[in-house]
Amino acid sequence: MTQRIGRRYFLLTLISALTFLTLGGRVLDAGTDPLPSWNEGDAKQSILDFVAKVTTAGGPDFVAPDDRIAVFDNDGTLWVEQPMYTQMAFALDRVKALAPAHPEWKNKQPFKAVLEGDMKVLAESGERGLLELVLATHSGMTTDEFTKIVTDWLATARHPRFNKPYESLVYQPMLELLAYLRANGFKTFIVSGGGVEFMRPWTKKVYGVSPEQVVGSSIKTKFEMRDGMPILVRIPELNFIDDKGGKPVGIYQYVAQRPIAAFGNSDGDLEMLQWTTMTNGPRFGLIVHHTDAEREYAYDRKSHFGRLDVALDAAVANKWTVVDMKKDWKVIFPP
Amino acid sequence: MTQRIGRRYFLLTLISALTFLTLGGRVLDAGTDPLPSWNEGDAKQSILDFVAKVTTAGGPDFVAPDDRIAVFDNDGTLWVEQPMYTQMAFALDRVKALAPAHPEWKNKQPFKAVLEGDMKVLAESGERGLLELVLATHSGMTTDEFTKIVTDWLATARHPRFNKPYESLVYQPMLELLAYLRANGFKTFIVSGGGVEFMRPWTKKVYGVSPEQVVGSSIKTKFEMRDGMPILVRIPELNFIDDKGGKPVGIYQYVAQRPIAAFGNSDGDLEMLQWTTMTNGPRFGLIVHHTDAEREYAYDRKSHFGRLDVALDAAVANKWTVVDMKKDWKVIFPP
Repeated sequence: MTQRIGRRYFLLTLISALTFLTLGGRVLDAGTDPLPSWNEGDAKQSILDFVAKVTTAGGPDFVAPDDRIAVFDNDGTLWVEQPMYTQMAFALDRVKALAPAHPEWKNKQPFKAVLEGDMKVLAESGERGLLELVLATHSGMTTDEFTKIVTDWLATARHPRFNKPYESLVYQPMLELLAYLRANGFKTFIVSGGGVEFMRPWTKKVYGVSPEQVVGSSIKTKFEMRDGMPILVRIPELNFIDDKGGKPVGIYQYVAQRPIAAFGNSDGDLEMLQWTTMTNGPRFGLIVHHTDAEREYAYDRKSHFGRLDVALDAAVANKWTVVDMKKDWKVIFPP
Repeated sequence: MTQRIGRRYFLLTLISALTFLTLGGRVLDAGTDPLPSWNEGDAKQSILDFVAKVTTAGGPDFVAPDDRIAVFDNDGTLWVEQPMYTQMAFALDRVKALAPAHPEWKNKQPFKAVLEGDMKVLAESGERGLLELVLATHSGMTTDEFTKIVTDWLATARHPRFNKPYESLVYQPMLELLAYLRANGFKTFIVSGGGVEFMRPWTKKVYGVSPEQVVGSSIKTKFEMRDGMPILVRIPELNFIDDKGGKPVGIYQYVAQRPIAAFGNSDGDLEMLQWTTMTNGPRFGLIVHHTDAEREYAYDRKSHFGRLDVALDAAVANKWTVVDMKKDWKVIFPP
C-alpha cells in the first residue's frame, strides 16, 4: 500500500511538473498566432475574443466543452463555389460519362443542354432541371459504388480557372479556423446545401471533419439483400434538402444541439445563423464576403451561385462578423 | 536556441518517464476485469477476443480507431422494454395529460382506449393506432418544449414492476461494455427504433453517448420565426422509421460509416446486424436473449414488444454471440 501511494505521489509530481512546463510552454508561445493567414483587424479579433471568452473557466461566458458546437457551410465558406458548385460540375461530368447508356438524353432536356455544353439553356431549366440531373447521376448504384465514383472523380477533375484539384481550392484561413476551434474543445460540423454523400468521402482528409459530422442534402437509400449480401441502394427520390430553413432542421436532426457559432457565406445560411445566434448566451455568427476577384471571386447580391443579399443586411442587424476576403485574408488557398 | 532545445529534451524525458510509468500501471492492472458484471463464458470471451484483435497494432485484424464504430439498439438491448416500450408509456401518460384539452378523445380510438385503460382495444389498434398516438403526443410544440416534457416525465415516471425511474433500469453489463469499447478507441452509437428526440435528452448522462451519436425514428420539424425569434416546431408528420431495413439506412445517414460491431435483441435489429457483419474484415454481432424472468423478463419468439425470432436463427447461421441473460450476467441493473 505504501509503495502504491509512493508511486502515485511520484506520478502526481511528474504530472504536475509536466503540466507546469506545458502550460509554461503555452504562455511562452502566446505570441504564436493560431490564425496566421488572417490579417489583423476586426474580423480576426472577433474570433479570438469569442473563443477566449467561452473557454475562460469561471468567466461569465464560459461554455462547457460538450456545448461548444460550431457549424460551417461548405460551398463558398470552406471552398470555392464559382463558377459553379463543385457538385454541379460533378453532375455534368457524370451526364457525359453516362450518356452512351442513355441515347434518349440527346433529345431530352436538361440532358441535351449538358451534352451540347449549352449553359444558357441549362440555367433556364431551373431548380427542377437541376434536381433531375442530380437524381439521374446520383442514384441507381450502391452506396459503396457512389463513394468510389466521387473519389475517382475528385482525383482527376480540375477547376476550370485554377486548373487544380477541387480539394486544393479550400480556404487556408478557414482551415486554420477549424483547427483553432477544435484545439479549443469545439466540435466542428459541416452543414451544407450540397449532397452529404458527395462530401463525406473527403472531409476528414481535407478539413479534419469526420463523415458523421457532415450534414447535407440527401436522396433516399434502400436496404436489400443481393446475392446473399446486404447492400444499400441509392434511389432517385429526395430525402432532405439542407438549405435555408432546412439548415436548422438538419442541425437539429444530425448535430442534435444548438450551435454556439455558425459560419456561412450566402442567403442559404441565413436561417442557420439566426438559429445559432438569436438566443441567450454567448453566440458567434460569421459571413465570408467574397470581395477578391483577383485571388478568388467577387460576388454577393446578384450571384447565381451563393447569393449573399438578405443575409448581408442581417449580418449588420445581428452584429455578425463579416469577413472581407480581400482585406482580411493574407492568403486564400493552402500553399 | 540551446536553451529551447534543452527544455524540449527535458520535456521529452519527462514524457517518456510518464508514459513508461503509465503503461507500467496498465500492465500491472492487466488483471482488472473490464466487464465485471459478466460471468466467464463464451459470450464474455467473444467480446474480449474481438476487442483484443481489432486493437492489436500490427496484427492481421487491426482496425484504425477512426473505423472502430459500434452500434447499439436501445429498447431491450440497453434498457428494459417490458411490459411495453418506455416511450409507449410516455405516450399514454401524455394522452392522459392532454385529454382535458381534447374532449373529442373520449369517443375516438385509440385515445378512448388509453383513457379507459383498455390495453386490449389499444393493442388491436395496431401500428396505425400507435402512430396516431405518437403523432398526437409528440408534435405541436417547439423542440425545446418537447425536450423539457421528456425530461420532466422521466424525472417522475416509475416502471410498473420495479417501481424505479426508467433511467435506472439500464443493463449494468451493457454500460460496462459501452465504456470498455470507448476505452479501446471505439465510437459508440445508439441506433433505435424509438424516437430520437425522446432519447437524446438523457443518453449522455445515462450511457455516455452524446446526443449526436443517437440515431432513431423521427417526425418532421419546421423552422419559423415567432415573435422575432427563430424556433423549430415539431409537426405531426413522420420523417423516418429507424427499424428493420431502416436501421442500416439510418446508420448510413447518421453514422456515415459501416460499423464493425452491432448489438441488438430483436428482429428489428436483424438488418443492422447483417449490414454490420456480412462483409470483409473483422466484425462482431451480438444479441441479448432475455432469459431471466426472475431478475428481468423472459421472452423471444412470441413477444409483442421486442420479438426475437428470425434474428435468433440468423445468429446461429452468422455466428453472432447470443447472450443468455440469466447465465451470462451477474447483475442486471446498476447497484
